[in-house]
Amino acid sequence: MIITSRKNETIMKSRGLLTSKKLRDQEGLFAAEGFKLAWEAVSAGIKAEYVLVSRSAEEKFPQKLAPFKEICPVFTVSDEVYLYLSEQKTPQGIFLAAKILDKSVNLDRILENDKILMLDCVQDSGNAGTMLRTAEALGIGGVVLGEGCADPWSPKVLRASMGSVFRQPFCCCNLSDAVYAAKEKGVEVYAAMLDDTASALGRFVFPKKAAVIIGNEGHGVAKNISDRCKKLFIPITGAESLNAAAAAAVLCWEMGRRDRDH
Amino acid sequence: MIITSRKNETIMKSRGLLTSKKLRDQEGLFAAEGFKLAWEAVSAGIKAEYVLVSRSAEEKFPQKLAPFKEICPVFTVSDEVYLYLSEQKTPQGIFLAAKILDKSVNLDRILENDKILMLDCVQDSGNAGTMLRTAEALGIGGVVLGEGCADPWSPKVLRASMGSVFRQPFCCCNLSDAVYAAKEKGVEVYAAMLDDTASALGRFVFPKKAAVIIGNEGHGVAKNISDRCKKLFIPITGAESLNAAAAAAVLCWEMGRRDRDH
Repeated sequence: MIITSRKNETIMKSRGLLTSKKLRDQEGLFAAEGFKLAWEAVSAGIKAEYVLVSRSAEEKFPQKLAPFKEICPVFTVSDEVYLYLSEQKTPQGIFLAAKILDKSVNLDRILENDKILMLDCVQDSGNAGTMLRTAEALGIGGVVLGEGCADPWSPKVLRASMGSVFRQPFCCCNLSDAVYAAKEKGVEVYAAMLDDTASALGRFVFPKKAAVIIGNEGHGVAKNISDRCKKLFIPITGAESLNAAAAAAVLCWEMGRRDRDH
Repeated sequence: MIITSRKNETIMKSRGLLTSKKLRDQEGLFAAEGFKLAWEAVSAGIKAEYVLVSRSAEEKFPQKLAPFKEICPVFTVSDEVYLYLSEQKTPQGIFLAAKILDKSVNLDRILENDKILMLDCVQDSGNAGTMLRTAEALGIGGVVLGEGCADPWSPKVLRASMGSVFRQPFCCCNLSDAVYAAKEKGVEVYAAMLDDTASALGRFVFPKKAAVIIGNEGHGVAKNISDRCKKLFIPITGAESLNAAAAAAVLCWEMGRRDRDH
C-alpha cells in the first residue's frame, strides 16, 4: 500500500517532526532525511521508529533500503506526497523517524570530561551543527547547549553536524546551572569574549579540566554567565570578529594543545 | 519620483546583480543589501554606483541614508517592488550597486604575503564567505580563490564574509597557476588532506612563507594540485572530517603560531 494523501496521519506527524520542536519534544522523536544521515543515526545506536520512502527511491535504491526494513516498519509514499513532506528541494526520498536520546541526566557525565564546549544562545542552526561536528572531530568530550540554542534535533542542525549529533555526547540545560556544576567539579570555565581582562588565546595553556563558552552570534556570552568565568579572546586583526563556528574550531583546537604537546 | 514597476530597467538590472554572476561580470558591478554591509563597502573605498531604497526605509532611516546621498544617486522604490528585488525575506530596504574591484593583476601582490590561504573549488557560499572573514580576522595576507569557487561578489558570500570581501586582499584565478607562481616566489604550499604522507598539524612549524589549500567540501583538494604540494592534515577523532570553514579556521590560526611564539 502506498500513502498518497497529504492528510495521512503519519505524513502529518512526520512533517511536524521536521518543522516543530514542540512536536519533537512531545513525541520524543526526531526526523533524519537522506540515506547517509538516517543510517548514521541507526549506526550510532539510535532506535528507529519507522521509515518513509518515496516510490522512486524504493525502486532506485532497494539495497540501501534493505537494512532499514530489518529494523523498523517501512512505508511507501507517492513521490508527490514525499516532496510535500520533505524539507529539501531535491530529496533522496528517505525519511527516518527515530527516538530522541534521553538527555535529562547527562550533565554530570558531560562534566566528567577534560575538554568541554558550552554554547550560550547559539541560534544559527548551521553554527550549532558545525560546532557539534567540530567538537566530535577535535576530541571534545562533551558539549552543553544552553537554553536559547538551536534545537540539536532540528533538520538543519542534524545536517550541519553531519551526524555528529548522534555520536557526540551533549546535553541541553540551563547554562548558568552548568557553569555552577562545572566549577563544583573542578572544571575551569572560560567565556570567549573581547574584554579588557581577557587572556589572549595562544599565550596561555588550558588547565587539565577546561570548558569554553561560545556566545550568541550577535551579543556574545551573556553577562550573568561571563561574570562567573575566566575570560579569553582570540587575537584578531582587521575583521570585527570571527564567525562563531570558526571561533569554536580554533578554541577546540587549542584545548587539545596540551594533549598534543605532552 | 518613485519606481513602482518591476519592469523598470534599473530594477531588472539590480535584480540581475543579485542573482547572476554573468551580469555582475559584464557590468563590473555587485550588489550589497542592508545598511551595514553597504556602508562597509563604501568605507573600504569601493565606488558606489547607485542606491535603491524602499519607501519605508527612506522614512524610517533618514540618517542612515544621508551619507549615501552624498556619494551617489539614490532612487526610491515602492515597498512592493523592493520586496520583489530583494534576496531577503525581511529586507531593511537598502540596496547598493557598486564597482567590483579589479582583480586581474592581484596574484603577484597576494603572493608577496607570508601567510596565504588558497581555496580549491569551495562551492558553498557560506563556507567561502566565512573563510574570507576568518582570513581577515586571523591576519592572513592574501586569499586565492581558484576556479570553481563560489563567486565572492555573490550576495551570500558577501553576507557570510560580513564585509571582509571588501577589505581582505584576494584574487580569483587558476589555482594550478597560483601554486606554480607561489613556489617560484619561495612560498611553501600545503594541501590540507588526509593522506599517508601528510604531516600532522600541531607537530610542525610552518616556514616563514606558507600557503595552505582548502579543498572542495566533498572531494577535497584536486589531485593535480595536491601532487605538487606538501600535504598536511588536522588530526581528528570521531567525525569523518571537519567542515571546510572550520578546518580553514584551525589552519589559519596555526599559520599565525610562528608570529605569536616568536
